[in-house]
Amino acid sequence: MKISAIITLKKDVLDPQGKAVHQALNGIGFDSVKSIRQGKYFEIEIDEKDKKIAEQKAEEMCKKLLANLVIEDYKIIEK
Amino acid sequence: MKISAIITLKKDVLDPQGKAVHQALNGIGFDSVKSIRQGKYFEIEIDEKDKKIAEQKAEEMCKKLLANLVIEDYKIIEK
Repeated sequence: MKISAIITLKKDVLDPQGKAVHQALNGIGFDSVKSIRQGKYFEIEIDEKDKKIAEQKAEEMCKKLLANLVIEDYKIIEK
Repeated sequence: MKISAIITLKKDVLDPQGKAVHQALNGIGFDSVKSIRQGKYFEIEIDEKDKKIAEQKAEEMCKKLLANLVIEDYKIIEK
């Protein structure tokens, strides 16, 4: 079963990478962009048929390894 | 309006970063992970009320700057 997880920086944490992308987008003419924040995306293939259990496992992975919960949030999304 | 975009490596492109994460997950006991692929995630705040136009703009950004279409795919997702 495939589970996707998105890791984003918490709202109050500075995101220089996103800012650079924002400036680059402005530079090539996308003036309507107000802000942009970058995060990480993981597509996890889990050997588990029960969706709920698979999601729980993915959540545990986020907590233990994928996300730094001091500065990042995670979100499990459906594939 | 907030639009999210996910950039992933194409299926046949090697993903050493994802492989490293996979091994790390195995190392801390997550044996049920079959594979993991890493991608990028962008949260774009666009000054545009029409959802369709905002999504079109986000798609254009992906094509022109955010994704390298030779090796990457993009997907616009709803917030």
